[in-house]
Amino acid sequence: MSDFSSFVCPAPLGAGDRILLGHGSGGTLSAELIRNLFLPLFRNPTLERLEDQAVLPVGGVRLAFTTDSFVVKPLFFRGGDIGSLAVHGTVNDLAMGGAMPLALSAAFIVEEGLPLETLGRIAESMAQAARAAGVEIVTGDTKVVEKGKGDGLFINTTGIGIVREGVSLSASAARPGDAVLVSGCLGDHGIAILAEREGLEFECPVASDSAALHTLVAAMLDASSEIRALRDPTRGGLSSTLNEIAGQSRVGIAIEDRAIPIREAVRGACELLGLDPLYVANEGKLVAIVAPEAAERVLAAMRSHPLGAGAARIGEVRQAYPGLVTLRTSLGTTRVVDMLSGDQLPRIC
Amino acid sequence: MSDFSSFVCPAPLGAGDRILLGHGSGGTLSAELIRNLFLPLFRNPTLERLEDQAVLPVGGVRLAFTTDSFVVKPLFFRGGDIGSLAVHGTVNDLAMGGAMPLALSAAFIVEEGLPLETLGRIAESMAQAARAAGVEIVTGDTKVVEKGKGDGLFINTTGIGIVREGVSLSASAARPGDAVLVSGCLGDHGIAILAEREGLEFECPVASDSAALHTLVAAMLDASSEIRALRDPTRGGLSSTLNEIAGQSRVGIAIEDRAIPIREAVRGACELLGLDPLYVANEGKLVAIVAPEAAERVLAAMRSHPLGAGAARIGEVRQAYPGLVTLRTSLGTTRVVDMLSGDQLPRIC
Repeated sequence: MSDFSSFVCPAPLGAGDRILLGHGSGGTLSAELIRNLFLPLFRNPTLERLEDQAVLPVGGVRLAFTTDSFVVKPLFFRGGDIGSLAVHGTVNDLAMGGAMPLALSAAFIVEEGLPLETLGRIAESMAQAARAAGVEIVTGDTKVVEKGKGDGLFINTTGIGIVREGVSLSASAARPGDAVLVSGCLGDHGIAILAEREGLEFECPVASDSAALHTLVAAMLDASSEIRALRDPTRGGLSSTLNEIAGQSRVGIAIEDRAIPIREAVRGACELLGLDPLYVANEGKLVAIVAPEAAERVLAAMRSHPLGAGAARIGEVRQAYPGLVTLRTSLGTTRVVDMLSGDQLPRIC
Repeated sequence: MSDFSSFVCPAPLGAGDRILLGHGSGGTLSAELIRNLFLPLFRNPTLERLEDQAVLPVGGVRLAFTTDSFVVKPLFFRGGDIGSLAVHGTVNDLAMGGAMPLALSAAFIVEEGLPLETLGRIAESMAQAARAAGVEIVTGDTKVVEKGKGDGLFINTTGIGIVREGVSLSASAARPGDAVLVSGCLGDHGIAILAEREGLEFECPVASDSAALHTLVAAMLDASSEIRALRDPTRGGLSSTLNEIAGQSRVGIAIEDRAIPIREAVRGACELLGLDPLYVANEGKLVAIVAPEAAERVLAAMRSHPLGAGAARIGEVRQAYPGLVTLRTSLGTTRVVDMLSGDQLPRIC
């Protein structure tokens, strides 16, 4: 998720305030920073759409353009590393706009003293991920900062892609009656990172779901032209993503706890650690808002794709309670699910 | 300068080797890293051109695409700050490919604890620089790292632009007989940063030359279609840039010490500090390689533009000594001017 895409909370920035870890969480503090600091300064219609990618007319096509820096800690984790994540994350931000990736840039900020072998392993992983996704890294940059002024390695990838003809996806386009779909089990990436960081061991180890979703999206768009919005629930998890859509579309979103696919190991880890899996980051999953008559067709297309095998219909868009996301629990009660507040797990991506 | 654009020095990366500050210098270590680590892994024809920007065919136009991260220290300096520099640097990398900027992305890596007011001032400076350059910041990202794991603020900007029809500039295109032009006094940016960092005071304070050069380039291209190559001599200075051109074009380049414009204050500071101004970074200057018959016309066009008022013809391209840059000193002797080796001034941009 591009951090400029989060939604609202207008509260003036106070003098003397300082940046907190939560400002990078993808939750309410991130949204405040965007709404109160960046948007008023950079104001332009493309940025104000608040999507995960800018879309610009270029020579008769619609060019998607998106950027993300990756500061994940540790650099290597079960299921990936900062390099593969940097490729997948930016390919996915293009894909969520209905674009096929055309090319990526890669910019490295390296801390003095990083073993060259580590940088080499990570660059190799990026190259592999890019090859697998069918996209080239065509330009780059390397900066080095003194020991103690960085943290091993930060990577920025910026991507350009061509938006598929006739497709127009937007977090503002959800309408009452639409179905809410997810492409598979939630929370794997966040728990994999946490396990690595804290040295946790599970009976069934959880691997990051980090993956490039553009071919899944292509299969979905082949199946129906009635997809309204796609988002990848990264920082801030499913809850923050649905809150963004509910806010931008001025609709309510109602989801069913029982319908949300979550691995037993992830659920267990979350219980143990006091985390809510609906706020845990994913890096190879998407949320789709789909017209009701097309929902089953799109769901079938998702399930036929290896990256959507665990897809599920988890709720619907409603007219009531615009801007709010509500969850019906397995006990039959209903509660409001807010955007992430503070920072549950820093440096997840 | 995009760090992937530096030239050569094939020597295998040794096991156990670690990243040094010099790997970010724009000199020989940067070139080694690119040649021996990134290029073999990311190998593709666009990247292998080793220009400051990738050029890709998109919908019937040629799209330029370039990335740079900025880690300059301190964040504010005479003549600019990390924000304006991040806009100018990327606009210039587009301009050196003959492209007018279309849009920029901006990605921030903020250290926990940075005053919001500081981030606000820098974002405002970016917005102003972008407005002045006629380019919009259309997409962005913010990440936060823990206190002690960053250094205030790092910014990545990535730019896209449209290459002017009929124009094809390349550091590989210099031919014997071509004139070597520079757009003005060299070394201002590096000395301004150093002065800020070390608390040096000069009688005539030196301000950074940080500026967006795309309108200067447009004026030059209006004047002649015989411009072969443009480069902005940032990290590694004039010497490293000319070495790249000499290497990529397999030609010799001979320059005249007396002809190179350098401010008295910069020359004095360099003498005092034991620096060679030919290696000091610039952020608002360009080097042009121009066919001999067009040289005076292009020089006149440069001098008619506010950012090229101090333009000068400093040498010529030769057949002899391919790959080498030679300097005729004011004493009449000639010496070889190498690419920057090690790191003269870290974190200049």
